Amino acid sequence: MDFSSDTSAPAHPLVIEALDHVNSGNAPSYGSDDATAHVKSLLETIFETELEIWLCASGTASNALALSCFCPPTGAIVCHEEAHIERDERGAPEFFSGGGKLHLLPGSDGKIDEQKLKIALSAIDRSFVHETPAHVLSLTNLTECGTSHSAAETSRRADLAKQYGLCVHLDGARLANAIAHTGETPADLTWKAGVDVLTLGLTKTGAMGCEIIILFGDARAKLPELKARAKRSGHMPPKMRYLAAQAKALLTDGLWLDLARHANQMAQQLATALCAVPGSARAYPTNGNEVFVRLPEGLAQKLETAGTKFYPWPGGSHRFVCSWATTQEDIDTFIAALNQIG
Amino acid sequence: MDFSSDTSAPAHPLVIEALDHVNSGNAPSYGSDDATAHVKSLLETIFETELEIWLCASGTASNALALSCFCPPTGAIVCHEEAHIERDERGAPEFFSGGGKLHLLPGSDGKIDEQKLKIALSAIDRSFVHETPAHVLSLTNLTECGTSHSAAETSRRADLAKQYGLCVHLDGARLANAIAHTGETPADLTWKAGVDVLTLGLTKTGAMGCEIIILFGDARAKLPELKARAKRSGHMPPKMRYLAAQAKALLTDGLWLDLARHANQMAQQLATALCAVPGSARAYPTNGNEVFVRLPEGLAQKLETAGTKFYPWPGGSHRFVCSWATTQEDIDTFIAALNQIG
Amino acid sequence: MDFSSDTSAPAHPLVIEALDHVNSGNAPSYGSDDATAHVKSLLETIFETELEIWLCASGTASNALALSCFCPPTGAIVCHEEAHIERDERGAPEFFSGGGKLHLLPGSDGKIDEQKLKIALSAIDRSFVHETPAHVLSLTNLTECGTSHSAAETSRRADLAKQYGLCVHLDGARLANAIAHTGETPADLTWKAGVDVLTLGLTKTGAMGCEIIILFGDARAKLPELKARAKRSGHMPPKMRYLAAQAKALLTDGLWLDLARHANQMAQQLATALCAVPGSARAYPTNGNEVFVRLPEGLAQKLETAGTKFYPWPGGSHRFVCSWATTQEDIDTFIAALNQIG
Amino acid sequence: MDFSSDTSAPAHPLVIEALDHVNSGNAPSYGSDDATAHVKSLLETIFETELEIWLCASGTASNALALSCFCPPTGAIVCHEEAHIERDERGAPEFFSGGGKLHLLPGSDGKIDEQKLKIALSAIDRSFVHETPAHVLSLTNLTECGTSHSAAETSRRADLAKQYGLCVHLDGARLANAIAHTGETPADLTWKAGVDVLTLGLTKTGAMGCEIIILFGDARAKLPELKARAKRSGHMPPKMRYLAAQAKALLTDGLWLDLARHANQMAQQLATALCAVPGSARAYPTNGNEVFVRLPEGLAQKLETAGTKFYPWPGGSHRFVCSWATTQEDIDTFIAALNQIG
Repeated sequence: MDFSSDTSAPAHPLVIEALDHVNSGNAPSYGSDDATAHVKSLLETIFETELEIWLCASGTASNALALSCFCPPTGAIVCHEEAHIERDERGAPEFFSGGGKLHLLPGSDGKIDEQKLKIALSAIDRSFVHETPAHVLSLTNLTECGTSHSAAETSRRADLAKQYGLCVHLDGARLANAIAHTGETPADLTWKAGVDVLTLGLTKTGAMGCEIIILFGDARAKLPELKARAKRSGHMPPKMRYLAAQAKALLTDGLWLDLARHANQMAQQLATALCAVPGSARAYPTNGNEVFVRLPEGLAQKLETAGTKFYPWPGGSHRFVCSWATTQEDIDTFIAALNQIG
Repeated sequence: MDFSSDTSAPAHPLVIEALDHVNSGNAPSYGSDDATAHVKSLLETIFETELEIWLCASGTASNALALSCFCPPTGAIVCHEEAHIERDERGAPEFFSGGGKLHLLPGSDGKIDEQKLKIALSAIDRSFVHETPAHVLSLTNLTECGTSHSAAETSRRADLAKQYGLCVHLDGARLANAIAHTGETPADLTWKAGVDVLTLGLTKTGAMGCEIIILFGDARAKLPELKARAKRSGHMPPKMRYLAAQAKALLTDGLWLDLARHANQMAQQLATALCAVPGSARAYPTNGNEVFVRLPEGLAQKLETAGTKFYPWPGGSHRFVCSWATTQEDIDTFIAALNQIG
Repeated sequence: MDFSSDTSAPAHPLVIEALDHVNSGNAPSYGSDDATAHVKSLLETIFETELEIWLCASGTASNALALSCFCPPTGAIVCHEEAHIERDERGAPEFFSGGGKLHLLPGSDGKIDEQKLKIALSAIDRSFVHETPAHVLSLTNLTECGTSHSAAETSRRADLAKQYGLCVHLDGARLANAIAHTGETPADLTWKAGVDVLTLGLTKTGAMGCEIIILFGDARAKLPELKARAKRSGHMPPKMRYLAAQAKALLTDGLWLDLARHANQMAQQLATALCAVPGSARAYPTNGNEVFVRLPEGLAQKLETAGTKFYPWPGGSHRFVCSWATTQEDIDTFIAALNQIG
Repeated sequence: MDFSSDTSAPAHPLVIEALDHVNSGNAPSYGSDDATAHVKSLLETIFETELEIWLCASGTASNALALSCFCPPTGAIVCHEEAHIERDERGAPEFFSGGGKLHLLPGSDGKIDEQKLKIALSAIDRSFVHETPAHVLSLTNLTECGTSHSAAETSRRADLAKQYGLCVHLDGARLANAIAHTGETPADLTWKAGVDVLTLGLTKTGAMGCEIIILFGDARAKLPELKARAKRSGHMPPKMRYLAAQAKALLTDGLWLDLARHANQMAQQLATALCAVPGSARAYPTNGNEVFVRLPEGLAQKLETAGTKFYPWPGGSHRFVCSWATTQEDIDTFIAALNQIG
């Protein structure tokens, strides 16, 4: 059983089907094709507002490109100390921004502590040239701890940021799972809560490799700069229609949310089973498709020996990830094995 | 009729089929999958040597990543003044190298003039700190003028470069067409001619979006640095198998060369027809799948009105590009239309 | 006799005296001191306008800092192909701008050809994302060929730049010599001719190491960004008063122009003598303190043997530079030696 | 009374005298002058070993240049969370390294906690491409808390670093004060304790603006790279002799250490007086020329009203800095005033 990552899963069959469908005849290069236009239109419906988009095969690049349009090389980005942009992107934000800094803040369950955010923001003195002032607040939903921000939680942090002149980025690599969990709308969790620029991930949801940078409101004016930065970093594929086809397949008729909902449900069952093992303890609430659990001594080793894939996590817990491709049968089989081993 | 670019063409059906084929079950992320290993093995056979590879969806990124491993931020890259890395990549080499410079040299038919190369290289004084010394020679095959470098032509330039301590990069976005035209082997045109690092393009050949950075000989030691740079620039897709599947489909049984040969043949017919028009003149030899021709006054306008797509080119000529998807019928229809108009 | 460079000369005694004078008691750090404020006020009188300034010990840094405030990482700087920023600054503009490009143009006597400038500017298509559009025109006065731009010559090039949306930088490492030669005012040669940002050099004029970045008109709004960039590149010395003292000494009572006028006169005498040697030919007009001359075969060797210092120059000429410290006796002695040797 | 910073102090008169002395006749540019060679020789005697040096007017640049030669753009620098390179240099290390990261560690009195250093270093997995592995450990002596590292304290941290393949940088902006306090030799506190590259500050000690990057042992091989990076960042002043003259004046006959010893003594008296005030508490040990003290409520305000200059410090204490120029009379006057106010 493979719970190593939602990126180990294949693409949803409708995604491959969409590639086949779009693979006919010539099409204009670099995003001028019909499929890309269609995706933009789908997203305007889904997010209930006008927006600008850029399709990108990489989540790391999507975050870094988005941030680099709002954080100058002399500025900083405020984020959680366990944020993906800090821990797992090999300095991509620093590279794309031309040497900007990340300003790390703590907070439980992967969410920036509001009080500490307020203290950090109020300490910014833009006229004090020796320090690097923050220009962007970057939030993550789902967080790196698999927890979701509600619209209200996002909004409170975004409001603080705006009060101090920052703009707000949301790393939504697993936003679909957060939408599915909270029951709040895409609009509620993003621009209505103060998000200016969103990295909407579809790769972990079920694409082959497709993320979308979405600019809301005034941030839409950054599209030309975003395109120039995408081009020079190799994120303007000539045959853009194949990115668009993936997005279109997933965004049509709510497939992305259905897949996320399914992954969340599988994770709930997994969490329940893992936490029922004597000596186990949930490390973080399971809001999405990731389960973080402290295992009793020896269990991790036994599960690995039995062929289960999952990762040890900093702090002593283990992470188990479900995806659209995790089946009820997978879960049942795993639980049976767990009961036998545990 | 669309002769605008080989990037306007769709992917070859076997590429899509390969995506479908690989889309089954979980696979390790970030290049540890079987398909990626298989591609490496295929390339070792094709190039008749041990090598290291990195798969990348973007040609711009592949060039810039490759160059950044060999050119320090304080160094320069020698290239033709019309090279893609100078003209069409929005400063990607400068960005990825951290501020390196391009040192531009002229030369007819898109090939660096050997005498001028020798003069430029012999003028490098690595101890003179004010100037930026070249560390890399970047060649292109096919060139931006659609001409091919023979193994001997590559070798003479590469030998000069090595004599002065430079390493040699080859932008092979259309290397398949050069192989098909010259009849020389992949090995002859690359490492046997002195190439240390190759950007092998498959996107224009028939992929959806797939390029391969290939490290030969001692350059293989750069793989860890290349991977780190790929990661931080967003060119380490988690679901790497989908890049590998494209490469595998094209590299198996010589499909990539068959497709290039076909595109070249279509271009030859197109060139013959266009040059037969009274007042036309070939701008550059047609060695691959691109035709550059000076059209008699008014003809370009008439062709566009009749629905033909192609691009005006710096210097007054026009470029017509064929691809794997250009059919004999396309050419015949175009020639008939041309004869009627011309 | 040392005609190697005006940077080989010592500082003017009044500069050292000024350092001694300012070296008393504590003073606020980082440019908040009285001496710095005094320099600003002196410059507003000299340039007959309100302006913002930043003092910097380095000419390379002054140019690169100035350019980086006006050229984004995705943009280009148009300059002469022999400009100091291209030839002698080891990629500083690329480094400070975060990977911007230099767009090189030819032109005789170190001045950008107006017709070629117009063609280059009119070819800029800011919506074409593949190419790097120019954001800044960088001129040099004196040029690298020792020639001066008149106000009218500067103005014609600056007007073209503005017509196409570029801002205008002037590298004035030897502006004092140009002012002395043309008889035009500092204002005429700079902001009245369309210059937005000036690097005013005083090191070659007679300072120990002092350059001033001057922002005119709307460009003054860039001061906070300039300061932030200066800080992070190590060009915000804590004890700024010692830079200010140098500037103050030279800018007071027109000392800088007197010194430049003297250096120019010495160079005129040198040029006359060198060009009178049979077989010699002036390579460029001598407008300032630099003489470029093609020497008859063997003469350079003989002069070096006789202890004269000067540099061979690209293109086959030799450069002889006078400074404020070159005396009439130096010139007379050299001419006597030349007549004996020649 | 001004205890705001040692950078508010003037230069020592012998420094100005040395400038005057060196200001005679022409001298080779860019570090080829005699004075620079003399400084190198002085330092080899002082540090009892062969070394390479680079003179630089800026402490921020010296740190960033030194670090950029040892930390690649894909790497990280381990430092204390309150280090100057993190807090006060506006992202200079990130800029000069091309986007490297700082990895912050806590520790009391401005010294990295050894246990936490060990944990952090042992967690580095150079083969895990997603994270940014540390390449350099940067220590500071005096620390930002005014405390000194003994040779043994430096050595223990440096040994750990080397065990994990890192090289060791020492920010010695106030190294003279640490030498004076510990009574250990320059060699003991640096290369004998494992330091590869030292930023030796003289500005705060008594120069106008002069820091020296010193490469020890194998690190000497980095000199050409250091020079190239210095040039492109504008830290290769043409008239280098004026930096060298400052260094020579201070390093001759132990003047730098005499000045530091004096500043330390003044600080000791200040500390004693401030801590004797009822309700005061020393925030950190006073090892050098800086006093950090928690003042009883209202006292800071009263002292400021009485004309004393000093800074509030993060964490609630206040910093008072003495310099070579602080006189016994200054201290006596202040203590008298303090006794009257307190």
